Amino acid sequence: MNSADLSYALAIAGTVAFAVTAVLAVIPKGIDLFGACVMGIITAIGGGTIRDIVLDVPVFWATDLNYIWVALASSIAAFYGNRFMERKNVYNLMLYLDGAGASMFAVQGAEKVIGLDFAMPLGPVILGVITAIGGGLTRDVLAGRTTLLMKKELYALPMTVGASGYLIFMHWFPESGFLIGTTCALVAFAIRAAAIYWGLTTPKWMILGDKGIASKK
Amino acid sequence: MNSADLSYALAIAGTVAFAVTAVLAVIPKGIDLFGACVMGIITAIGGGTIRDIVLDVPVFWATDLNYIWVALASSIAAFYGNRFMERKNVYNLMLYLDGAGASMFAVQGAEKVIGLDFAMPLGPVILGVITAIGGGLTRDVLAGRTTLLMKKELYALPMTVGASGYLIFMHWFPESGFLIGTTCALVAFAIRAAAIYWGLTTPKWMILGDKGIASKK
Amino acid sequence: MNSADLSYALAIAGTVAFAVTAVLAVIPKGIDLFGACVMGIITAIGGGTIRDIVLDVPVFWATDLNYIWVALASSIAAFYGNRFMERKNVYNLMLYLDGAGASMFAVQGAEKVIGLDFAMPLGPVILGVITAIGGGLTRDVLAGRTTLLMKKELYALPMTVGASGYLIFMHWFPESGFLIGTTCALVAFAIRAAAIYWGLTTPKWMILGDKGIASKK
Repeated sequence: MNSADLSYALAIAGTVAFAVTAVLAVIPKGIDLFGACVMGIITAIGGGTIRDIVLDVPVFWATDLNYIWVALASSIAAFYGNRFMERKNVYNLMLYLDGAGASMFAVQGAEKVIGLDFAMPLGPVILGVITAIGGGLTRDVLAGRTTLLMKKELYALPMTVGASGYLIFMHWFPESGFLIGTTCALVAFAIRAAAIYWGLTTPKWMILGDKGIASKK
Repeated sequence: MNSADLSYALAIAGTVAFAVTAVLAVIPKGIDLFGACVMGIITAIGGGTIRDIVLDVPVFWATDLNYIWVALASSIAAFYGNRFMERKNVYNLMLYLDGAGASMFAVQGAEKVIGLDFAMPLGPVILGVITAIGGGLTRDVLAGRTTLLMKKELYALPMTVGASGYLIFMHWFPESGFLIGTTCALVAFAIRAAAIYWGLTTPKWMILGDKGIASKK
Repeated sequence: MNSADLSYALAIAGTVAFAVTAVLAVIPKGIDLFGACVMGIITAIGGGTIRDIVLDVPVFWATDLNYIWVALASSIAAFYGNRFMERKNVYNLMLYLDGAGASMFAVQGAEKVIGLDFAMPLGPVILGVITAIGGGLTRDVLAGRTTLLMKKELYALPMTVGASGYLIFMHWFPESGFLIGTTCALVAFAIRAAAIYWGLTTPKWMILGDKGIASKK
């Protein structure tokens, strides 16, 4: 298995995790099979789709529908298997897989943007993060849920670290793409996994308003 | 009147229905004339616009502003004529016209995607459904309403049937576009109309969470 | 300082105001530094980005990242300096700057669309208004706030006046772009400033539903 195969296998695993966690996230609000599939697919491919539209390149799933088939099958499985998926250990596995998927998508997104030399140096970071969280944001907006931008969950920050790290180290060592990509995705995932495991939130000096400090008026 | 003329006349009728039902849907939340016109226009052209952006082709209304003029006029009429439009029989007519418009937009959307040979075979179904419901979803998000993805209303499902049917039968009988398109739009509309008339919802085995089954934790 | 420099300086000032008012608007809902920066950047560049995607031209910030750097710095400043920014006179200054920015973006958006001869004559008005309010709408949707389309605040209307005025007078006096643009932006800003100063809302004959007239059923 070479690095491209590994990268593809990880992207598919990330797609499964994105779709499953998306469906489990919206089920408590009451949803039907159709809505669940739409939510699963949008969460899985939404971020990359927004990235590609901003880049003005063909959307990545147009030439490889496996992403959508996998997201569709995962959504149906999560819908009917929700009792199994919601078991503590299975759900936790999905949470970690979701974090791993997001970390990898952030780095792959940044990689694609660097390859196109688009809006350097901010473009890869912005669009890398959008690749990782854009689908989840769209899902939350369509489902009427609070988006993760308004939560203190440590999710977008590790993805920003991963995409930024990739950008910076690729600037210094442009030959070592695979090593840098793997390392940055692992670092992003490590932070995200720590956040899941210990229930970490954004540090206090980065939070405003939830204690009423700024909502006094 | 040839088939192209008929198709165009139906698209304009669908645009009227989309704009009118959109304005009537948001009035109860309190809206001004400007907001009503924006909501009407977005609902009428939003789905096709998202489709064209994903396809990376010029948005359909750029070369035919009739769609927007009609949506604008319909929105203003619905705004000031809301007492008339909300009469039971007028409102019902609009509901059925809205269903007819969505059915036709789903098939026309699928047709456009097939013509571009984009992301076959899933592309025409996904973008056909987006053509039909994308405008309504955008309206609901902007208006703070629950999107139809979170309801048990039978709306997106018939549109999926229409777009899928068109795709499948066009694969077998590529010569009979007009016949197949008309039939598929009529079938989608028949299901939607039955759903309106008898108040049908998604079948029970396709629904989760609204009785608290999945929200136990 | 020539007219292009002036135009650029105003666009940067508008970007500052958009980012600052965006961050101040979401702080009461509770937000962390990352979310605040995303909201600030999206508000500042969202409208122009949507416009450019619909126009199918490269997004304006891809070749000039100053817009994003300025939005980022302004967001961080507004986040940590919120007590200062929320002082009555500073906040008011920002409100007026925000209105000035929106007025200018509406006219600049219309100008760009006319230059591309896109969807004349409605295109410049629609996309001019989207340039002015698209970022704020996206922010409100992501933050779970009521969008300005559902409020009686006089915000979108002056922007429509500005973009429409620019379109109409440029048709008659195509040589006088700078004069017409400045005048139309000033008129739009004057209406918006009057609305802020006197707390003006949309005229009564343009409002429906908020007193329950249309929500009787």
